[in-house]
Amino acid sequence: MLVVLRLGHRLPRDERITTHVALVARAFGAGRLIYAGQHDSGFEESIGRVVSNWGGDFQIEYSKNPLKTAKEYKKSGYKIAHLTMYGIPLPEKEAELRKILNLLVIVGAEQVPAEFYEIADFNLSLTSQPHSEVAALAIALDRIMGGKELSRTFSSRFAGKMEIIPSEKGKKVRKP
Amino acid sequence: MLVVLRLGHRLPRDERITTHVALVARAFGAGRLIYAGQHDSGFEESIGRVVSNWGGDFQIEYSKNPLKTAKEYKKSGYKIAHLTMYGIPLPEKEAELRKILNLLVIVGAEQVPAEFYEIADFNLSLTSQPHSEVAALAIALDRIMGGKELSRTFSSRFAGKMEIIPSEKGKKVRKP
Repeated sequence: MLVVLRLGHRLPRDERITTHVALVARAFGAGRLIYAGQHDSGFEESIGRVVSNWGGDFQIEYSKNPLKTAKEYKKSGYKIAHLTMYGIPLPEKEAELRKILNLLVIVGAEQVPAEFYEIADFNLSLTSQPHSEVAALAIALDRIMGGKELSRTFSSRFAGKMEIIPSEKGKKVRKP
Repeated sequence: MLVVLRLGHRLPRDERITTHVALVARAFGAGRLIYAGQHDSGFEESIGRVVSNWGGDFQIEYSKNPLKTAKEYKKSGYKIAHLTMYGIPLPEKEAELRKILNLLVIVGAEQVPAEFYEIADFNLSLTSQPHSEVAALAIALDRIMGGKELSRTFSSRFAGKMEIIPSEKGKKVRKP
């Protein structure tokens, strides 16, 4: 199971960024997003609507104490990958990451406390340049999943109300 | 040359998302970002500061008429790739895209006018699921660049004031 832990959600500043983080987590194969910082029921509802419309078995949870949450995951056998521009380039660890069954991927906000760098089994960078936690998460999950999520469909058990039929021009949506 | 065209920038709603789009464009190998929608000098200055601090030869331009801009690029020999969840999965076109020397990558906002679907040589999706233009751009550029940008450094001619030394724990920054 892939779980994403998003640190430091602040309103209204992070409203859309955290939404993008959650949608990327879902679309790129994570089963759960845990977020910390300010509690935000509007955010939870909007992701709930996406899951109900577009399918999948994806959960949102809130954590008041994300360091404690990370420690609990670690204790239960999860490895922890923290995405940070200061880390080791992800390609160096890619083969190792793909073998891990249960992985907690941490994406930070402005300042990530040093404890998360310490608890992480991997501090991983995507480009060593400042860019975006949304992009870092997408590339990391893409590499960990081996690109499979780009052609993934949700099983009928978790089918949504809508499904896109890829097309050269325009928009085709089917209701399964 | 890789150029990114970001449609429909609105303030304050898109402030951070468009910033992430620009930072991803720069970090993942584009030479220029053109944005349309509301003019935003604060955004331009903040990206200018990143370029000055972190290096590279990356430009920001504003377009009042992005369809006209796209047509001009097309006329001058650029191919156009429009990223949309309704398009053809990018991996199907990946080999073809890598051969293109001059590519304009369009990322939309909420509603993209039909003309952009028409003018595009490729309408490309990343997952056929709703997620994020920031993530779509990152994955698209990563695939088009063949993953090379993950270990790219800027040449000394365009060196920044700061450079990260990747590390297992903590933060190491060097001033070249």
